[in-house]
Amino acid sequence: MSMADGEGTRRGGGAARRAARVDAPVVHKPTLVRNIPVYEVTNQEGEELIHQLAMRIVEEVGVEFRDAESLEIWRQAGAEVTGEAIRLSRDQLLELVELAPETYTQHARNPERTVQVGGKHMVFAPSYGPPFVLDLEMKRRHATLEDLNNLQKINHMGESVHIAGGPIVEPVDVSVPHRHLHMAYSALKYSDKPIIGAVTARQRAQDTVDMTKLVFGKDFATNNTCITSLINSNSPLVWDETMLDALKVYAANCQAVLCSPFIMAGASTPASSVGSMAVITAEALTAIAFAQVIRPGVPMLFGCPAMTVALKTGAPVHGSPDSGMAQLLAGMMARRYKVPHRAIANTATSKVADIYAGYDSMWGLFPAVLAGGNWITMAGGLIEGSLGLSYAKTVLDFEQCDAFYHFAQGCRFDDLEEIFETVKEVGPGGHFLGAAHTRKSNLFEFLSQSNVTFEQWEEEGSRSAEQIGIEKAKNWLARYEPPPIDPGIDEALLDFVKRREAEIPKAIE
Amino acid sequence: MSMADGEGTRRGGGAARRAARVDAPVVHKPTLVRNIPVYEVTNQEGEELIHQLAMRIVEEVGVEFRDAESLEIWRQAGAEVTGEAIRLSRDQLLELVELAPETYTQHARNPERTVQVGGKHMVFAPSYGPPFVLDLEMKRRHATLEDLNNLQKINHMGESVHIAGGPIVEPVDVSVPHRHLHMAYSALKYSDKPIIGAVTARQRAQDTVDMTKLVFGKDFATNNTCITSLINSNSPLVWDETMLDALKVYAANCQAVLCSPFIMAGASTPASSVGSMAVITAEALTAIAFAQVIRPGVPMLFGCPAMTVALKTGAPVHGSPDSGMAQLLAGMMARRYKVPHRAIANTATSKVADIYAGYDSMWGLFPAVLAGGNWITMAGGLIEGSLGLSYAKTVLDFEQCDAFYHFAQGCRFDDLEEIFETVKEVGPGGHFLGAAHTRKSNLFEFLSQSNVTFEQWEEEGSRSAEQIGIEKAKNWLARYEPPPIDPGIDEALLDFVKRREAEIPKAIE
Repeated sequence: MSMADGEGTRRGGGAARRAARVDAPVVHKPTLVRNIPVYEVTNQEGEELIHQLAMRIVEEVGVEFRDAESLEIWRQAGAEVTGEAIRLSRDQLLELVELAPETYTQHARNPERTVQVGGKHMVFAPSYGPPFVLDLEMKRRHATLEDLNNLQKINHMGESVHIAGGPIVEPVDVSVPHRHLHMAYSALKYSDKPIIGAVTARQRAQDTVDMTKLVFGKDFATNNTCITSLINSNSPLVWDETMLDALKVYAANCQAVLCSPFIMAGASTPASSVGSMAVITAEALTAIAFAQVIRPGVPMLFGCPAMTVALKTGAPVHGSPDSGMAQLLAGMMARRYKVPHRAIANTATSKVADIYAGYDSMWGLFPAVLAGGNWITMAGGLIEGSLGLSYAKTVLDFEQCDAFYHFAQGCRFDDLEEIFETVKEVGPGGHFLGAAHTRKSNLFEFLSQSNVTFEQWEEEGSRSAEQIGIEKAKNWLARYEPPPIDPGIDEALLDFVKRREAEIPKAIE
Repeated sequence: MSMADGEGTRRGGGAARRAARVDAPVVHKPTLVRNIPVYEVTNQEGEELIHQLAMRIVEEVGVEFRDAESLEIWRQAGAEVTGEAIRLSRDQLLELVELAPETYTQHARNPERTVQVGGKHMVFAPSYGPPFVLDLEMKRRHATLEDLNNLQKINHMGESVHIAGGPIVEPVDVSVPHRHLHMAYSALKYSDKPIIGAVTARQRAQDTVDMTKLVFGKDFATNNTCITSLINSNSPLVWDETMLDALKVYAANCQAVLCSPFIMAGASTPASSVGSMAVITAEALTAIAFAQVIRPGVPMLFGCPAMTVALKTGAPVHGSPDSGMAQLLAGMMARRYKVPHRAIANTATSKVADIYAGYDSMWGLFPAVLAGGNWITMAGGLIEGSLGLSYAKTVLDFEQCDAFYHFAQGCRFDDLEEIFETVKEVGPGGHFLGAAHTRKSNLFEFLSQSNVTFEQWEEEGSRSAEQIGIEKAKNWLARYEPPPIDPGIDEALLDFVKRREAEIPKAIE
């Protein structure tokens, strides 16, 4: 297909195009509002069977809350407590779950970045927790605070990424008891998007809440949601003290929590998408209900990262048809219980950003979007079964989020008359490149997808997409501009970090 | 997650596991019967709008049939012919389309590989037409007859690939006028799956039909479908003489044809998924109707490869949210007109099997399956915007087809009682690895997905998925066993090829 007359942008070739790309202004897209239907992978009868199985598990097997204080709270709320297991009737459980809001607002320090969570709204949140990076020299090493700051910057520039994130990587060079302080500061300083909080100890959750008070004001930050955090159960059917402590702090302060079983079907849950979903439902709903006992109406999310286990090796597997199925089922259950659905996007089992990393990521992202995920974590970069983050893959995965942002807008039907007239004018054998309708087109284009000829690609250095990703990440870091922050607030945050660092002993390392 | 007792397969490490894989017997899966719902990306109203737009195009703009004989056939069938354009009322058109069967059987020379096409049935067919290969030494060069034969062998071993294919690659070392003979022989000899026919000239289609007569018997091969072929329109709205000649031969002999607009939204069709689908519908339905004039009831397929054009460079783009949308719409339209839906899977714009090749492929495969595609082409290997085929990507893409074969089985609900008992027995904090239910699990596992630790991966040579794909392709070629063929038939085919080669002048090269 040759170029249309007057469309001379091919002149100048790759260099000119790349220049245009690197100078493009940073765009921040608002919360995505889904305009395509959700994909229901089973019918109402199937959904009902999962619900019934989950309710039997809650009623007959029970869920362990391994924390004396939590058990006492449950006892007072009317649950049957046996050892560490709590059992509830389905009516008791669902009455509490109903108190959780179907949608909520999470505030950003820049009001323009404030997001809606739930309903038809969808936000993408960054990766979470990997202790390793595959860096810009393709070296694999422990992640550092500098990496975390870099990734907050890159994340801030991701146009479809709505959330600043917490531990995009674990800053392994910072002592564990001090990490949460730097994590919150990094998110609040290098981005102005909504943040994710620390959950690794009660006091660390409290410090995170206290830091948001410095930004949003004390009253506002305890009566409005300014943090969403993520707690994992120890599947099957166990919530531990650390996670419950964090949940209690956040719930008491009106902060949202993803109650997220970290499942590996075949190991921590049954080797079945349906069976896993029933266990997940039992775990998530009891945590959501627990939060409602602490503060009725506090926002909570339902969902799971949905991995499977390789039965031959015991290794966790990211990116599989079974995990895709689990995400689709999770979307159905979340809608049933009227709580926002947390889904998971771009994780991969590969050690580098190779073709399997692409396949694996799409086994997350496609079901996450079609499931109608309201809070889609892992927007970019994860490799090594979530143990590592690739800088290159981060920016490439973000392009896929952009593509799904476009896809979820659905079809346009408002220009059919113009299309008909254009088809008539172009006629059989003509072409649409120069047509007025085409010039207004919003066809999606991937910036790092190589659509030049093989010869041109070779001439430009035979770069793989991974190499293009490295260059793009470097370019973004060079172009990053910090979002303005009130100097008084910045100083207050730095003072807080300094003071708490002095108060909290470093871990013995 | 540590290994369960008694599950000692980790001992022996990667080498033992790989040995187990390479010795695995070749499995041939039957036609996939979809057990998940289709995904309807728009509603009935949207579908109706596309239909109305397509009908207006057929009635008011018309479609050109650039072939005197075809125009005469149309004239006799009652179409309005103006120059080379034919116009039909929607009633005339749809009455003819209704004659095309909703499902059909395509016979393989081995009856066990015979497939059903249409309804809930889905088959995967191999790649089509690339003149270049990225070979087993990662060298990019023109494809040869040896490559075609190799790829027929690899394709024969693909467990979810149901079709032997035609020009999996173009054997560029064979003179163009002789290519179709070798293409048909390669498919019939190295595989026993159903074949794809040549469409590059009337006589070449006839030769292909004649070769199937040698295999199936003359009567059978002209009254039963033993070939499915693929003709492309010259969008917008043109069918040329070559394609129509092939269509006439195949239709007269009861052979199925994919009437497949080769669209690039923004260039050959409007820069709109909906507008493109209306043009595609007009083109495909007129060809399907035309075939019914020739032989009422002959099987025809509806669909398109659905690319877009990069508006800045004019290059075709494979793998995009807009092409995914077009495939989903095509599935809806095919069901409306009750003809089998041809979809497209693993194409990529990348020059190598890199991460973008993975993303791109999934932008084909995921919508193709969710659209309920009945005949899903490009099951493996395509790169370079369909100009090249990577051996490595071929076998890796096939694993994705296997995964979707698994996914399309849907959820199991028949083991819920056993799951409940297992959950009760395992209890909170236990694990499912050793459970009887888990041992019967059919969780999907990708053979080439690296789920070992980073350290073990490094120890085993830090291989990318592309390198693993090369090794797998080499292994398959070494293990290939030809399916038995009657020596008399083989001899007759070889004689036919020899005789026709002597009769047909080589092209001036």
